[in-house]
Amino acid sequence: MDINGVLEKLHVIDSENRHLARAQSVLRWDQETYMPEKGVQERADQVALIEGIAHERFTSPETGRLLNEAGSTSENPGGDERLSALERDFLKTLRRDYDKAALLPGDFVTDAARAEGLSQAAWVNARQENDFAAFLPHLTKMIEFARSRAEYWGWKDNPYDGLLDIYEPGMGQDAITAVFAPLKDELSALMKKIAAEPRVDDAFLSQEYNVEKQADFSRELLKRLGFDTERGRLDISAHPFTTMLGSDDVRITTRFYPRQLLSGIFATIHEAGHAFYEMDLPHNLRGTCLADGASMGIHESQSRLWENVIARSRHFWEGMFPVLRSYFPAALDGVPIEGFYRAINRAQPSLIRVEADEVSYSLHVILRFELERDLFSGALNPADLPKAWREKMRNFLGIEPETDADGVLQDVHWSMGAFGYFPSYALGNLYGSAFWQKLNEDLPDTDTLIAEGNFAPIRTWLRDTIYVHGRRLKPPELLKTVTVGSLSPQTFLEYINSKYTGIYGL
Amino acid sequence: MDINGVLEKLHVIDSENRHLARAQSVLRWDQETYMPEKGVQERADQVALIEGIAHERFTSPETGRLLNEAGSTSENPGGDERLSALERDFLKTLRRDYDKAALLPGDFVTDAARAEGLSQAAWVNARQENDFAAFLPHLTKMIEFARSRAEYWGWKDNPYDGLLDIYEPGMGQDAITAVFAPLKDELSALMKKIAAEPRVDDAFLSQEYNVEKQADFSRELLKRLGFDTERGRLDISAHPFTTMLGSDDVRITTRFYPRQLLSGIFATIHEAGHAFYEMDLPHNLRGTCLADGASMGIHESQSRLWENVIARSRHFWEGMFPVLRSYFPAALDGVPIEGFYRAINRAQPSLIRVEADEVSYSLHVILRFELERDLFSGALNPADLPKAWREKMRNFLGIEPETDADGVLQDVHWSMGAFGYFPSYALGNLYGSAFWQKLNEDLPDTDTLIAEGNFAPIRTWLRDTIYVHGRRLKPPELLKTVTVGSLSPQTFLEYINSKYTGIYGL
Repeated sequence: MDINGVLEKLHVIDSENRHLARAQSVLRWDQETYMPEKGVQERADQVALIEGIAHERFTSPETGRLLNEAGSTSENPGGDERLSALERDFLKTLRRDYDKAALLPGDFVTDAARAEGLSQAAWVNARQENDFAAFLPHLTKMIEFARSRAEYWGWKDNPYDGLLDIYEPGMGQDAITAVFAPLKDELSALMKKIAAEPRVDDAFLSQEYNVEKQADFSRELLKRLGFDTERGRLDISAHPFTTMLGSDDVRITTRFYPRQLLSGIFATIHEAGHAFYEMDLPHNLRGTCLADGASMGIHESQSRLWENVIARSRHFWEGMFPVLRSYFPAALDGVPIEGFYRAINRAQPSLIRVEADEVSYSLHVILRFELERDLFSGALNPADLPKAWREKMRNFLGIEPETDADGVLQDVHWSMGAFGYFPSYALGNLYGSAFWQKLNEDLPDTDTLIAEGNFAPIRTWLRDTIYVHGRRLKPPELLKTVTVGSLSPQTFLEYINSKYTGIYGL
Repeated sequence: MDINGVLEKLHVIDSENRHLARAQSVLRWDQETYMPEKGVQERADQVALIEGIAHERFTSPETGRLLNEAGSTSENPGGDERLSALERDFLKTLRRDYDKAALLPGDFVTDAARAEGLSQAAWVNARQENDFAAFLPHLTKMIEFARSRAEYWGWKDNPYDGLLDIYEPGMGQDAITAVFAPLKDELSALMKKIAAEPRVDDAFLSQEYNVEKQADFSRELLKRLGFDTERGRLDISAHPFTTMLGSDDVRITTRFYPRQLLSGIFATIHEAGHAFYEMDLPHNLRGTCLADGASMGIHESQSRLWENVIARSRHFWEGMFPVLRSYFPAALDGVPIEGFYRAINRAQPSLIRVEADEVSYSLHVILRFELERDLFSGALNPADLPKAWREKMRNFLGIEPETDADGVLQDVHWSMGAFGYFPSYALGNLYGSAFWQKLNEDLPDTDTLIAEGNFAPIRTWLRDTIYVHGRRLKPPELLKTVTVGSLSPQTFLEYINSKYTGIYGL
């Protein structure tokens, strides 16, 4: 077969693999949003079966043979140098995915998928009932599956590195510690300085806010941000997430609490940031394994950029606060914009990661990183997690959750076996501020754009500068291409110090 | 391998086939309810791919070999006579499904599935825009796919018989004509008698009824009927349908119009009738090809029994009318229950099948049956359907639609290639009244049960008498087992004559 015939066949294999992954996303999205309670067992079987079929088809000897024929080997994944740069990137990425998948036995993939579905459903209940013991057997199983996965990939002595590599290729435990250590120190110091200042008044945020109206406002926000509802939607789920059901079908979820005005709204914006990345991937990568984010850290850079750098800025609310006030006139009429801005940025030790301010947020992440590290080194027994959680919360933030629902059970990730994911959030902060610095060099006066609600130039810059690469560049390459720099906490720390110096007059 | 090993393997193949079919149902349900507009193309690709994979796996030589090993052949599908009756029924049904599937080429299955997805989406638009021309190419393609399907199955000279056989095994064009001819005559005669009587006043049904409240009332109705929301749900779609996403996940859809109080409510009850059948299938058949309705006609007997025989009875509204009135006091406070009962049963020629009264309903079905018959005999060109539709409407009911949206474009079925399905509705009326007659012999005083809103005994009887057989018995066997009779229009005609003699004082 000539090389074009080989590439064509590989593109079919790749595209079928994606179609199955996205069909899975439909099943999972449905499970989190609308599925009736008792559907969970059979849904787990359906997901497991399709997962197994997808794995079996993707890792068939035919795929390996075609990759070899295209000159793509594990050592030289890009294949023949006379191919176009795009095809070489395609081969490189497909080979990487293939090698990873081929190392996992089919039964393992099916069993893990089924267990994950049941585990996630068990977590939803356990969290609701504040019952860690009910979740523990699932959690233990998830840890074992994750450990085995890393071991199949060859990370026998350091399985956690293997898991981190899924979400942030090339960033192991040591590399992350090197970045997290100064971050932890500086953020802790900043938290202490802030604690010495007078409290910011944010009591008005805990009034009763009708959840229907919160949802209406969130939809209006999405519209103003340019979220295309012909290609996506917003729904409600226990834990907010973004999922791609197709190139033209990107869905986000959120949830609303009557006495927490910020929670649902900022979750919506966070997920919208993820969705923009997926929706605005370049057309020439469509339907290939390159049509994806560069890494979870880069993905989180987008969600956290929109959520925090943009939507927690004073300028953003110059345009939006009058809109918000029109939804809740009784609650917000007496609130000046400056007071609102300070309230939504109030820094204070708190229990829930997704509700945390920008200063303490990364500390929540580092806490999880350390717990994961200890779980996989064997230093920490899963049964002891609630205790370890409380201890670390005390050490990091000086507070302790009264319930596990507000502690170790608060996040969905572990229930899905997504160990190694959490660091992406803090890395996202670092990538995001580096990107934002560069964006501000390229675009004149972003403050005014944001204040005017004119987000198109920002979305266009992100699209043409970051999204355009899809998954062609690994995170360090992407960072270098965009900012000419490498990963460091400095830009983020400068941003956060300057912002909080302003808010608290430090 | 011993027979138990063979059976076990066949059960795995069967169960995987079902899981894939149900995963498809999730994708299709989502497409009809929540999918963003532009997701349609990729969704069609996903559905087509999984359809192809399911077909490839189910029709693999392994399945045929195992069936043979179990002694199940096309001639003796039940296999070894020493097997249990249940296993023999399992083999019989699996062999029938396998033979049918194996005759269709894989590419054909994939292409048809993809085309159906796109066709259905095109129909939604065409109906909205009243644009038959835009739908015609899809319709033509659907007819060709259906014809090819029948031809692959060996119905070369009479493809329509092959299509009818999908939904009502053993009922060909001639057998159906034999039942439909007297039905058509008697129902037409009854329509004429009714037309000579004074009109029933149902103007109050066309007042403005808030659709949110209609939805709330429908949910309350479902609750009172015993619809289990832990195992199912109600959503909104362009065309009401019921779908099984799992043994414990049965979903129905409806839609509400502000000026048609009855439409959405009776659609809800109709679909609930389908759902009860699926939800109450016996546990010992779970996860096998026997856990299904006996035929579409039997399925429609259930939906139409609940919708009409039960929910359009006077007794039903003795209990429910006060409830309905509490949702719409302004509109219904002056309406006496007798007036309501007469209004919801008012018989009058009308354009839309799903809104038709019980007398004219079957005439709508027979009209479609005749059109399908002519399409597949070649006597009717698809492009001439709108004209043929209007002519037949004039002949059958003396009225004509002003738009194709209210005519040939009103039903979803043809857009999905489901030719041969329509007769099931009228057959459902016949089966349903036969079952109802028997139920009334077994259960004392169903009128009182219905008036008291005590539906459990009726649901239990249906479960233990009809649903218990799943797909083990073919429709004629089931009818014989339950009623000791065979298919005839008599019981239905007696029911309808007696009911309408009462309403119109004929």
